[in-house]
Amino acid sequence: MDNRPIGVFDSGLGGLTAVKKLKEVLPGEDIVYFGDTGRVPYGGRSRETIIRYTQQDIAFLLSMDIKAIIVACGTATTNALDYVKDSCPVPIYGVADPAAKRAAEITKNKKVGLIGTEASIRSGAYERLICRYDSDIEMTGVGCPLIVPMVEEGRISRDDKILYHTVEEYLTPLKEKGVDTLIMGCTHYPIISDVIGDIMGEGVALIDPGAEAAKLMKEELAALELLNDQERQALSVYYVSDVVYEFTKTASIFLGENVDDITIRIDIEHY
Amino acid sequence: MDNRPIGVFDSGLGGLTAVKKLKEVLPGEDIVYFGDTGRVPYGGRSRETIIRYTQQDIAFLLSMDIKAIIVACGTATTNALDYVKDSCPVPIYGVADPAAKRAAEITKNKKVGLIGTEASIRSGAYERLICRYDSDIEMTGVGCPLIVPMVEEGRISRDDKILYHTVEEYLTPLKEKGVDTLIMGCTHYPIISDVIGDIMGEGVALIDPGAEAAKLMKEELAALELLNDQERQALSVYYVSDVVYEFTKTASIFLGENVDDITIRIDIEHY
Repeated sequence: MDNRPIGVFDSGLGGLTAVKKLKEVLPGEDIVYFGDTGRVPYGGRSRETIIRYTQQDIAFLLSMDIKAIIVACGTATTNALDYVKDSCPVPIYGVADPAAKRAAEITKNKKVGLIGTEASIRSGAYERLICRYDSDIEMTGVGCPLIVPMVEEGRISRDDKILYHTVEEYLTPLKEKGVDTLIMGCTHYPIISDVIGDIMGEGVALIDPGAEAAKLMKEELAALELLNDQERQALSVYYVSDVVYEFTKTASIFLGENVDDITIRIDIEHY
Repeated sequence: MDNRPIGVFDSGLGGLTAVKKLKEVLPGEDIVYFGDTGRVPYGGRSRETIIRYTQQDIAFLLSMDIKAIIVACGTATTNALDYVKDSCPVPIYGVADPAAKRAAEITKNKKVGLIGTEASIRSGAYERLICRYDSDIEMTGVGCPLIVPMVEEGRISRDDKILYHTVEEYLTPLKEKGVDTLIMGCTHYPIISDVIGDIMGEGVALIDPGAEAAKLMKEELAALELLNDQERQALSVYYVSDVVYEFTKTASIFLGENVDDITIRIDIEHY
Protein backbone atom coordinates (compact mmCIF):
# COMPACT_ATOMS: atom_id res chain seq x y z
CA MET A 1 0.00 0.00 0.00
CA ASP A 2 0.99 3.58 -0.61
CA ASN A 3 -1.16 6.34 0.84
CA ARG A 4 0.37 9.19 -1.13
CA PRO A 5 -1.91 11.00 -3.61
CA ILE A 6 -2.23 10.40 -7.34
CA GLY A 7 -1.10 13.35 -9.50
CA VAL A 8 -3.12 14.40 -12.54
CA PHE A 9 -2.27 17.22 -14.92
CA ASP A 10 -3.76 18.86 -17.95
CA SER A 11 -3.13 21.96 -20.05
CA GLY A 12 -6.14 23.54 -18.35
CA LEU A 13 -9.37 22.46 -16.77
CA GLY A 14 -10.38 19.81 -19.29
CA GLY A 15 -8.48 17.17 -17.31
CA LEU A 16 -11.17 17.41 -14.67
CA THR A 17 -13.21 15.03 -16.82
CA ALA A 18 -10.48 12.47 -16.09
CA VAL A 19 -10.49 13.39 -12.38
CA LYS A 20 -14.22 12.74 -12.27
CA LYS A 21 -13.72 9.25 -13.73
CA LEU A 22 -10.75 8.61 -11.42
CA LYS A 23 -12.89 9.45 -8.38
CA GLU A 24 -15.55 7.00 -9.55
CA VAL A 25 -13.07 4.21 -10.23
CA LEU A 26 -10.72 4.83 -7.26
CA PRO A 27 -12.83 6.59 -4.62
CA GLY A 28 -10.28 5.98 -1.85
CA GLU A 29 -7.41 7.84 -3.52
CA ASP A 30 -6.29 11.38 -2.73
CA ILE A 31 -5.73 13.47 -5.85
CA VAL A 32 -3.41 16.39 -6.63
CA TYR A 33 -4.47 18.12 -9.86
CA PHE A 34 -2.48 20.65 -11.83
CA GLY A 35 -4.16 22.68 -14.60
CA ASP A 36 -1.78 24.86 -16.62
CA THR A 37 -4.40 27.59 -17.06
CA GLY A 38 -1.74 30.29 -17.58
CA ARG A 39 -0.47 28.55 -20.74
CA VAL A 40 -3.55 26.72 -22.03
CA PRO A 41 -4.17 25.57 -24.76
CA TYR A 42 -1.36 23.19 -25.71
CA GLY A 43 -3.13 21.89 -28.83
CA GLY A 44 -1.88 24.51 -31.28
CA ARG A 45 1.72 24.61 -29.99
CA SER A 46 4.85 22.91 -31.29
CA ARG A 47 6.05 19.55 -30.00
CA GLU A 48 9.13 21.18 -28.45
CA THR A 49 7.04 23.61 -26.44
CA ILE A 50 4.57 20.89 -25.41
CA ILE A 51 7.48 18.74 -24.15
CA ARG A 52 8.95 21.63 -22.13
CA TYR A 53 5.58 22.47 -20.56
CA THR A 54 4.95 18.78 -19.79
CA GLN A 55 8.33 18.45 -18.07
CA GLN A 56 7.48 21.41 -15.85
CA ASP A 57 4.02 20.02 -15.07
CA ILE A 58 5.54 16.69 -14.00
CA ALA A 59 8.25 18.42 -11.92
CA PHE A 60 5.56 20.32 -10.06
CA LEU A 61 3.52 17.18 -9.32
CA LEU A 62 6.64 15.32 -8.15
CA SER A 63 7.28 18.18 -5.70
CA MET A 64 3.91 17.29 -4.16
CA ASP A 65 5.10 13.75 -3.30
CA ILE A 66 2.66 11.83 -5.46
CA LYS A 67 2.86 8.06 -6.11
CA ALA A 68 1.76 8.01 -9.75
CA ILE A 69 0.76 10.41 -12.52
CA ILE A 70 -2.03 10.54 -15.08
CA VAL A 71 -1.28 12.77 -18.06
CA ALA A 72 -4.91 13.74 -18.63
CA CYS A 73 -4.09 16.04 -21.53
CA GLY A 74 -4.40 14.32 -24.90
CA THR A 75 -1.95 16.75 -26.49
CA ALA A 76 0.72 16.25 -23.80
CA THR A 77 0.22 12.47 -23.96
CA THR A 78 0.60 12.22 -27.72
CA ASN A 79 3.45 14.73 -28.04
CA ALA A 80 5.51 14.41 -24.87
CA LEU A 81 4.89 11.15 -22.99
CA ASP A 82 7.47 9.14 -24.96
CA TYR A 83 10.09 11.79 -24.10
CA VAL A 84 9.41 12.04 -20.39
CA LYS A 85 8.30 8.60 -19.22
CA ASP A 86 11.74 7.03 -18.83
CA SER A 87 12.99 9.78 -16.54
CA CYS A 88 9.83 9.86 -14.41
CA PRO A 89 10.50 8.20 -11.02
CA VAL A 90 6.85 7.15 -10.46
CA PRO A 91 4.46 5.22 -12.73
CA ILE A 92 3.05 7.58 -15.37
CA TYR A 93 -0.04 6.88 -17.48
CA GLY A 94 -1.09 8.72 -20.61
CA VAL A 95 -4.65 8.76 -21.91
CA ALA A 96 -3.80 7.52 -25.39
CA ASP A 97 -2.61 3.94 -24.84
CA PRO A 98 -5.62 2.74 -22.78
CA ALA A 99 -7.98 4.36 -25.32
CA ALA A 100 -6.17 2.78 -28.28
CA LYS A 101 -6.29 -0.64 -26.55
CA ARG A 102 -10.01 -0.31 -25.88
CA ALA A 103 -10.71 0.83 -29.45
CA ALA A 104 -8.81 -2.18 -30.83
CA GLU A 105 -10.88 -4.49 -28.60
CA ILE A 106 -14.29 -3.20 -29.63
CA THR A 107 -14.08 -2.22 -33.30
CA LYS A 108 -15.74 -4.80 -35.52
CA ASN A 109 -15.12 -3.33 -38.96
CA LYS A 110 -11.56 -2.27 -38.03
CA LYS A 111 -12.27 1.36 -38.87
CA VAL A 112 -11.51 3.64 -35.95
CA GLY A 113 -11.95 7.41 -35.88
CA LEU A 114 -9.99 9.86 -33.78
CA ILE A 115 -10.79 13.48 -32.96
CA GLY A 116 -8.27 15.65 -31.13
CA THR A 117 -6.25 18.84 -31.21
CA GLU A 118 -4.11 19.68 -34.23
CA ALA A 119 -0.97 18.71 -32.30
CA SER A 120 -2.43 15.33 -31.26
CA ILE A 121 -3.44 14.40 -34.79
CA ARG A 122 -0.12 15.60 -36.25
CA SER A 123 1.85 13.49 -33.74
CA GLY A 124 0.56 10.21 -35.19
CA ALA A 125 0.78 8.73 -31.68
CA TYR A 126 -2.62 7.03 -31.73
CA GLU A 127 -1.89 5.32 -35.06
CA ARG A 128 1.37 3.92 -33.67
CA LEU A 129 -0.33 2.71 -30.49
CA ILE A 130 -3.33 1.05 -32.13
CA CYS A 131 -1.06 -0.69 -34.60
CA ARG A 132 0.55 -2.54 -31.69
CA TYR A 133 -2.82 -4.03 -30.75
CA ASP A 134 -4.10 -4.76 -34.26
CA SER A 135 -2.17 -3.77 -37.35
CA ASP A 136 -5.22 -4.31 -39.58
CA ILE A 137 -7.06 -1.35 -38.06
CA GLU A 138 -7.40 1.71 -40.26
CA MET A 139 -7.43 4.89 -38.23
CA THR A 140 -8.74 8.25 -39.49
CA GLY A 141 -7.91 11.34 -37.46
CA VAL A 142 -9.46 14.80 -37.62
CA GLY A 143 -8.14 17.90 -35.84
CA CYS A 144 -10.95 19.87 -34.22
CA PRO A 145 -9.45 23.16 -32.96
CA LEU A 146 -12.76 24.91 -32.29
CA ILE A 147 -14.34 22.39 -29.91
CA VAL A 148 -12.19 23.36 -26.89
CA PRO A 149 -12.93 27.11 -27.12
CA MET A 150 -16.61 26.37 -27.73
CA VAL A 151 -16.92 24.17 -24.62
CA GLU A 152 -14.97 26.75 -22.60
CA GLU A 153 -17.41 29.42 -23.82
CA GLY A 154 -20.18 27.27 -22.31
CA ARG A 155 -21.48 25.86 -25.60
CA ILE A 156 -22.22 22.35 -24.41
CA SER A 157 -25.90 21.91 -25.25
CA ARG A 158 -27.12 19.89 -28.23
CA ASP A 159 -29.40 22.89 -28.93
CA ASP A 160 -26.45 25.17 -29.64
CA LYS A 161 -26.56 25.39 -33.45
CA ILE A 162 -23.02 26.74 -33.84
CA LEU A 163 -21.59 23.90 -31.75
CA TYR A 164 -23.70 21.33 -33.58
CA HIS A 165 -22.78 22.46 -37.09
CA THR A 166 -19.10 22.79 -36.22
CA VAL A 167 -18.94 19.29 -34.74
CA GLU A 168 -20.93 17.98 -37.71
CA GLU A 169 -18.41 19.52 -40.12
CA TYR A 170 -15.50 17.92 -38.27
CA LEU A 171 -17.17 14.49 -38.03
CA THR A 172 -18.39 14.26 -41.64
CA PRO A 173 -15.18 12.65 -43.00
CA LEU A 174 -15.34 10.06 -40.20
CA LYS A 175 -18.96 9.23 -40.97
CA GLU A 176 -18.12 8.95 -44.67
CA LYS A 177 -15.29 6.60 -43.76
CA GLY A 178 -17.77 4.38 -41.90
CA VAL A 179 -15.88 4.18 -38.58
CA ASP A 180 -17.66 2.08 -35.93
CA THR A 181 -15.54 3.36 -33.04
CA LEU A 182 -14.54 6.95 -32.22
CA ILE A 183 -11.84 8.00 -29.76
CA MET A 184 -12.64 11.36 -28.16
CA GLY A 185 -8.98 12.33 -27.97
CA CYS A 186 -9.18 15.56 -25.97
CA THR A 187 -10.40 16.03 -22.41
CA HIS A 188 -13.12 18.49 -23.39
CA TYR A 189 -14.90 16.18 -25.79
CA PRO A 190 -16.62 13.86 -23.29
CA ILE A 191 -18.50 16.96 -22.04
CA ILE A 192 -20.33 17.04 -25.41
CA SER A 193 -20.51 13.29 -25.95
CA ASP A 194 -24.30 13.58 -26.48
CA VAL A 195 -23.75 15.92 -29.46
CA ILE A 196 -20.99 13.70 -30.84
CA GLY A 197 -23.20 10.64 -30.35
CA ASP A 198 -26.17 12.28 -32.10
CA ILE A 199 -24.06 13.09 -35.13
CA MET A 200 -22.19 9.79 -35.36
CA GLY A 201 -25.34 7.72 -34.78
CA GLU A 202 -26.12 4.79 -32.50
CA GLY A 203 -23.92 2.24 -34.19
CA VAL A 204 -20.71 4.07 -33.30
CA ALA A 205 -19.00 3.41 -29.95
CA LEU A 206 -17.49 6.49 -28.26
CA ILE A 207 -14.33 6.04 -26.21
CA ASP A 208 -13.42 8.40 -23.36
CA PRO A 209 -9.64 8.17 -22.87
CA GLY A 210 -9.78 9.63 -19.34
CA ALA A 211 -12.14 6.88 -18.23
CA GLU A 212 -9.97 4.17 -19.83
CA ALA A 213 -6.84 5.57 -18.15
CA ALA A 214 -8.55 5.59 -14.76
CA LYS A 215 -9.53 1.92 -15.16
CA LEU A 216 -6.02 0.93 -16.23
CA MET A 217 -4.47 2.84 -13.33
CA LYS A 218 -6.71 0.98 -10.89
CA GLU A 219 -5.58 -2.40 -12.23
CA GLU A 220 -1.92 -1.49 -12.25
CA LEU A 221 -1.78 0.20 -8.85
CA ALA A 222 -3.56 -2.87 -7.40
CA ALA A 223 -1.00 -5.18 -9.04
CA LEU A 224 1.86 -3.04 -7.69
CA GLU A 225 0.20 -2.93 -4.25
CA LEU A 226 0.16 0.84 -4.37
CA LEU A 227 -3.51 1.43 -3.57
CA ASN A 228 -4.51 3.59 -0.62
CA ASP A 229 -5.82 1.69 2.43
CA GLN A 230 -6.70 4.57 4.73
CA GLU A 231 -10.29 4.70 5.92
CA ARG A 232 -10.86 8.46 5.89
CA GLN A 233 -12.57 10.44 3.13
CA ALA A 234 -10.25 10.90 0.16
CA LEU A 235 -9.03 14.46 -0.48
CA SER A 236 -8.52 16.42 -3.68
CA VAL A 237 -6.55 19.59 -4.15
CA TYR A 238 -6.30 21.64 -7.35
CA TYR A 239 -3.38 23.78 -8.47
CA VAL A 240 -3.50 26.22 -11.38
CA SER A 241 -1.05 28.59 -13.11
CA ASP A 242 -3.44 31.49 -13.65
CA VAL A 243 -5.85 33.03 -11.13
CA VAL A 244 -8.05 30.68 -9.16
CA TYR A 245 -11.47 32.22 -9.79
CA GLU A 246 -11.40 31.69 -13.55
CA PHE A 247 -10.72 28.01 -12.96
CA THR A 248 -13.21 27.39 -10.18
CA LYS A 249 -15.96 29.19 -12.12
CA THR A 250 -15.79 26.65 -14.95
CA ALA A 251 -14.63 23.64 -12.92
CA SER A 252 -18.17 22.91 -11.77
CA ILE A 253 -19.19 22.17 -15.40
CA PHE A 254 -16.49 19.52 -15.62
CA LEU A 255 -16.50 18.11 -12.12
CA GLY A 256 -20.01 18.67 -10.85
CA GLU A 257 -18.74 20.04 -7.53
CA ASN A 258 -17.46 23.27 -6.01
CA VAL A 259 -13.67 23.55 -5.68
CA ASP A 260 -13.39 27.19 -4.54
CA ASP A 261 -11.70 26.40 -1.22
CA ILE A 262 -9.33 23.74 -2.48
CA THR A 263 -7.78 25.51 -5.47
CA ILE A 264 -4.35 27.15 -5.18
CA ARG A 265 -2.29 29.14 -7.64
CA ILE A 266 1.38 28.33 -8.33
CA ASP A 267 4.06 29.71 -10.66
CA ILE A 268 4.76 26.86 -13.07
CA GLU A 269 7.79 28.62 -14.55
CA HIS A 270 9.66 27.87 -11.31
CA TYR A 271 9.58 24.11 -11.99
CA MET B 1 15.73 61.95 -35.94
CA ASP B 2 16.17 58.55 -34.39
CA ASN B 3 17.06 55.66 -36.67
CA ARG B 4 16.37 52.89 -34.17
CA PRO B 5 13.50 50.51 -34.97
CA ILE B 6 9.91 50.66 -33.71
CA GLY B 7 8.92 47.73 -31.47
CA VAL B 8 5.54 46.06 -31.87
CA PHE B 9 4.22 43.19 -29.80
CA ASP B 10 1.13 41.02 -29.67
CA SER B 11 0.02 37.88 -27.87
CA GLY B 12 0.56 36.00 -31.14
CA LEU B 13 0.46 36.71 -34.82
CA GLY B 14 -2.65 38.90 -34.90
CA GLY B 15 -0.51 41.99 -34.33
CA LEU B 16 0.79 41.58 -37.85
CA THR B 17 -2.37 43.38 -39.01
CA ALA B 18 -1.00 46.42 -37.13
CA VAL B 19 2.47 45.88 -38.65
CA LYS B 20 0.93 45.94 -42.11
CA LYS B 21 -0.73 49.29 -41.38
CA LEU B 22 2.46 50.62 -39.79
CA LYS B 23 4.44 49.77 -42.92
CA GLU B 24 1.89 51.64 -45.06
CA VAL B 25 1.87 54.72 -42.82
CA LEU B 26 5.60 54.79 -41.93
CA PRO B 27 7.37 52.98 -44.79
CA GLY B 28 10.80 54.26 -43.74
CA GLU B 29 10.80 52.75 -40.26
CA ASP B 30 12.54 49.54 -39.23
CA ILE B 31 10.31 47.23 -37.17
CA VAL B 32 11.04 44.65 -34.48
CA TYR B 33 7.97 42.47 -33.86
CA PHE B 34 7.45 40.09 -30.97
CA GLY B 35 4.59 37.55 -31.07
CA ASP B 36 4.11 35.57 -27.86
CA THR B 37 3.08 32.44 -29.72
CA GLY B 38 4.16 30.18 -26.85
CA ARG B 39 1.55 31.74 -24.53
CA VAL B 40 -1.17 32.92 -26.92
CA PRO B 41 -4.07 33.67 -26.42
CA TYR B 42 -4.13 36.37 -23.72
CA GLY B 43 -7.86 37.04 -24.10
CA GLY B 44 -9.11 34.43 -21.64
CA ARG B 45 -6.46 35.03 -18.97
CA SER B 46 -6.63 37.06 -15.77
CA ARG B 47 -5.51 40.69 -15.60
CA GLU B 48 -2.59 39.73 -13.33
CA THR B 49 -1.26 37.23 -15.83
CA ILE B 50 -1.78 39.61 -18.77
CA ILE B 51 0.20 42.31 -16.92
CA ARG B 52 3.07 39.91 -16.19
CA TYR B 53 3.23 38.70 -19.78
CA THR B 54 3.07 42.31 -21.07
CA GLN B 55 5.97 43.35 -18.80
CA GLN B 56 8.07 40.52 -20.23
CA ASP B 57 7.11 41.42 -23.81
CA ILE B 58 8.17 45.06 -23.24
CA ALA B 59 11.42 44.00 -21.53
CA PHE B 60 12.29 41.89 -24.56
CA LEU B 61 11.61 44.73 -27.03
CA LEU B 62 13.66 47.16 -24.91
CA SER B 63 16.55 44.71 -25.10
CA MET B 64 16.40 45.20 -28.88
CA ASP B 65 17.11 48.96 -28.54
CA ILE B 66 13.85 50.24 -29.99
CA LYS B 67 12.76 53.90 -29.90
CA ALA B 68 9.02 53.41 -29.34
CA ILE B 69 6.51 50.59 -28.80
CA ILE B 70 3.09 49.75 -30.19
CA VAL B 71 1.08 47.38 -28.01
CA ALA B 72 -0.77 45.79 -30.92
CA CYS B 73 -2.67 43.37 -28.69
CA GLY B 74 -6.10 44.67 -27.68
CA THR B 75 -6.11 42.50 -24.56
CA ALA B 76 -2.68 43.71 -23.38
CA THR B 77 -3.64 47.31 -24.13
CA THR B 78 -6.90 47.23 -22.20
CA ASN B 79 -5.61 45.20 -19.27
CA ALA B 80 -1.96 46.16 -18.81
CA LEU B 81 -1.05 49.45 -20.52
CA ASP B 82 -2.07 51.61 -17.54
CA TYR B 83 0.19 49.51 -15.30
CA VAL B 84 3.28 49.56 -17.49
CA LYS B 85 3.32 52.87 -19.34
CA ASP B 86 4.83 55.00 -16.56
CA SER B 87 7.84 52.75 -16.15
CA CYS B 88 8.45 52.37 -19.91
CA PRO B 89 11.52 54.46 -20.93
CA VAL B 90 10.35 54.96 -24.54
CA PRO B 91 7.02 56.25 -25.91
CA ILE B 92 4.45 53.43 -25.80
CA TYR B 93 1.18 53.42 -27.74
CA GLY B 94 -1.77 51.13 -27.15
CA VAL B 95 -4.40 50.38 -29.77
CA ALA B 96 -7.38 51.38 -27.62
CA ASP B 97 -6.97 55.14 -27.16
CA PRO B 98 -6.55 56.04 -30.86
CA ALA B 99 -9.55 53.82 -31.72
CA ALA B 100 -11.70 55.36 -28.98
CA LYS B 101 -10.76 58.87 -30.17
CA ARG B 102 -11.64 58.03 -33.76
CA ALA B 103 -14.97 56.43 -32.73
CA ALA B 104 -15.89 59.55 -30.74
CA GLU B 105 -15.11 61.70 -33.78
CA ILE B 106 -17.24 59.80 -36.27
CA THR B 107 -20.28 58.50 -34.39
CA LYS B 108 -23.37 60.54 -35.19
CA ASN B 109 -25.96 58.85 -32.99
CA LYS B 110 -23.49 58.48 -30.09
CA LYS B 111 -23.95 54.71 -30.01
CA VAL B 112 -20.65 52.87 -30.37
CA GLY B 113 -20.17 49.11 -30.41
CA LEU B 114 -17.08 47.23 -29.32
CA ILE B 115 -16.09 43.64 -30.01
CA GLY B 116 -13.06 42.09 -28.33
CA THR B 117 -11.79 39.28 -26.17
CA GLU B 118 -13.48 38.49 -22.86
CA ALA B 119 -10.61 40.15 -20.98
CA SER B 120 -10.81 43.33 -23.07
CA ILE B 121 -14.54 43.73 -22.55
CA ARG B 122 -14.29 42.93 -18.82
CA SER B 123 -11.57 45.58 -18.35
CA GLY B 124 -13.94 48.46 -19.20
CA ALA B 125 -10.93 50.28 -20.68
CA TYR B 126 -12.65 51.40 -23.87
CA GLU B 127 -15.61 52.87 -21.97
CA ARG B 128 -13.25 54.90 -19.78
CA LEU B 129 -11.29 56.14 -22.80
CA ILE B 130 -14.25 57.12 -24.94
CA CYS B 131 -15.83 58.94 -22.01
CA ARG B 132 -12.84 61.32 -22.01
CA TYR B 133 -13.63 62.34 -25.58
CA ASP B 134 -17.42 62.49 -25.28
CA SER B 135 -19.22 61.51 -22.12
CA ASP B 136 -22.57 61.30 -23.95
CA ILE B 137 -21.49 58.28 -25.97
CA GLU B 138 -23.12 55.00 -25.01
CA MET B 139 -20.80 52.06 -25.60
CA THR B 140 -21.93 48.45 -25.89
CA GLY B 141 -19.27 45.73 -25.70
CA VAL B 142 -19.51 42.07 -26.68
CA GLY B 143 -16.87 39.43 -25.96
CA CYS B 144 -16.25 37.21 -28.99
CA PRO B 145 -13.97 34.35 -27.84
CA LEU B 146 -14.48 32.18 -30.94
CA ILE B 147 -13.40 34.65 -33.63
CA VAL B 148 -9.65 34.34 -32.90
CA PRO B 149 -9.55 30.51 -33.08
CA MET B 150 -11.75 30.57 -36.21
CA VAL B 151 -9.44 33.01 -38.03
CA GLU B 152 -6.41 30.99 -36.90
CA GLU B 153 -8.09 27.87 -38.29
CA GLY B 154 -8.23 29.69 -41.64
CA ARG B 155 -11.94 30.51 -41.55
CA ILE B 156 -11.75 33.98 -43.06
CA SER B 157 -14.08 33.74 -46.05
CA ARG B 158 -17.58 35.23 -46.06
CA ASP B 159 -18.69 31.87 -47.50
CA ASP B 160 -17.74 30.00 -44.30
CA LYS B 161 -21.16 29.38 -42.73
CA ILE B 162 -19.82 28.58 -39.26
CA LEU B 163 -17.82 31.81 -39.17
CA TYR B 164 -20.74 33.81 -40.53
CA HIS B 165 -23.32 32.49 -38.07
CA THR B 166 -20.96 32.85 -35.12
CA VAL B 167 -20.13 36.45 -35.97
CA GLU B 168 -23.82 37.13 -36.60
CA GLU B 169 -24.70 35.76 -33.14
CA TYR B 170 -22.10 37.99 -31.49
CA LEU B 171 -23.12 41.11 -33.43
CA THR B 172 -26.90 40.79 -33.01
CA PRO B 173 -27.04 42.74 -29.70
CA LEU B 174 -25.01 45.54 -31.30
CA LYS B 175 -27.34 45.71 -34.31
CA GLU B 176 -30.34 45.74 -31.99
CA LYS B 177 -28.74 48.58 -30.06
CA GLY B 178 -28.45 50.56 -33.31
CA VAL B 179 -24.73 51.39 -33.08
CA ASP B 180 -23.43 53.45 -36.04
CA THR B 181 -19.74 52.81 -35.27
CA LEU B 182 -18.02 49.54 -34.36
CA ILE B 183 -14.53 49.19 -32.89
CA MET B 184 -12.89 45.91 -33.97
CA GLY B 185 -11.03 45.58 -30.67
CA CYS B 186 -8.83 42.57 -31.40
CA THR B 187 -6.05 42.27 -33.95
CA HIS B 188 -7.67 39.32 -35.73
CA TYR B 189 -10.94 41.06 -36.52
CA PRO B 190 -9.77 43.33 -39.39
CA ILE B 191 -8.94 40.10 -41.30
CA ILE B 192 -12.71 39.40 -41.46
CA SER B 193 -13.88 43.00 -41.78
CA ASP B 194 -15.87 42.05 -44.91
CA VAL B 195 -17.93 39.53 -42.89
CA ILE B 196 -18.39 42.02 -40.04
CA GLY B 197 -19.35 44.72 -42.56
CA ASP B 198 -21.88 42.45 -44.30
CA ILE B 199 -23.60 41.69 -41.01
CA MET B 200 -23.56 45.21 -39.56
CA GLY B 201 -24.68 46.80 -42.85
CA GLU B 202 -23.42 49.77 -44.84
CA GLY B 203 -24.44 52.46 -42.37
CA VAL B 204 -22.02 51.26 -39.70
CA ALA B 205 -18.41 52.52 -39.69
CA LEU B 206 -15.77 49.93 -38.76
CA ILE B 207 -12.71 51.08 -36.84
CA ASP B 208 -9.39 49.20 -37.04
CA PRO B 209 -7.42 50.07 -33.87
CA GLY B 210 -4.09 48.99 -35.38
CA ALA B 211 -4.51 51.42 -38.26
CA GLU B 212 -5.48 54.26 -35.90
CA ALA B 213 -2.47 53.55 -33.67
CA ALA B 214 -0.12 53.62 -36.68
CA LYS B 215 -1.48 57.02 -37.75
CA LEU B 216 -1.14 58.44 -34.23
CA MET B 217 2.40 57.12 -33.92
CA LYS B 218 3.37 58.83 -37.17
CA GLU B 219 2.09 62.19 -35.91
CA GLU B 220 3.72 61.89 -32.52
CA LEU B 221 7.10 60.62 -33.71
CA ALA B 222 7.17 63.47 -36.22
CA ALA B 223 6.39 66.01 -33.46
CA LEU B 224 9.12 64.49 -31.26
CA GLU B 225 11.54 64.48 -34.22
CA LEU B 226 12.03 60.75 -33.81
CA LEU B 227 11.33 59.65 -37.40
CA ASN B 228 13.92 57.67 -39.34
CA ASP B 229 15.79 59.63 -42.01
CA GLN B 230 17.96 56.90 -43.49
CA GLU B 231 17.59 56.32 -47.19
CA ARG B 232 17.93 52.55 -47.30
CA GLN B 233 15.09 50.06 -47.48
CA ALA B 234 13.43 49.66 -44.06
CA LEU B 235 13.93 46.31 -42.33
CA SER B 236 11.57 44.12 -40.32
CA VAL B 237 12.48 41.26 -38.03
CA TYR B 238 10.05 38.97 -36.23
CA TYR B 239 10.60 37.21 -32.90
CA VAL B 240 8.30 34.50 -31.51
CA SER B 241 8.17 32.40 -28.32
CA ASP B 242 7.15 29.11 -29.96
CA VAL B 243 8.67 27.48 -33.02
CA VAL B 244 9.16 29.63 -36.08
CA TYR B 245 7.43 27.50 -38.72
CA GLU B 246 4.00 27.65 -37.09
CA PHE B 247 4.23 31.43 -37.12
CA THR B 248 5.58 31.92 -40.61
CA LYS B 249 2.99 29.52 -42.05
CA THR B 250 0.11 31.77 -40.94
CA ALA B 251 1.93 35.11 -41.10
CA SER B 252 1.37 35.36 -44.84
CA ILE B 253 -2.42 35.57 -44.26
CA PHE B 254 -1.93 38.57 -42.01
CA LEU B 255 0.99 40.31 -43.66
CA GLY B 256 0.78 39.32 -47.30
CA GLU B 257 4.49 38.52 -47.46
CA ASN B 258 6.90 35.71 -46.63
CA VAL B 259 8.81 36.10 -43.34
CA ASP B 260 10.55 32.69 -43.23
CA ASP B 261 14.09 34.07 -43.23
CA ILE B 262 13.50 36.94 -40.82
CA THR B 263 11.75 35.13 -37.96
CA ILE B 264 13.67 34.10 -34.85
CA ARG B 265 12.64 32.22 -31.74
CA ILE B 266 13.41 33.54 -28.24
CA ASP B 267 12.65 32.36 -24.68
CA ILE B 268 10.31 35.03 -23.32
CA GLU B 269 10.51 33.63 -19.78
CA HIS B 270 14.06 35.00 -19.57
CA TYR B 271 12.81 38.61 -19.72
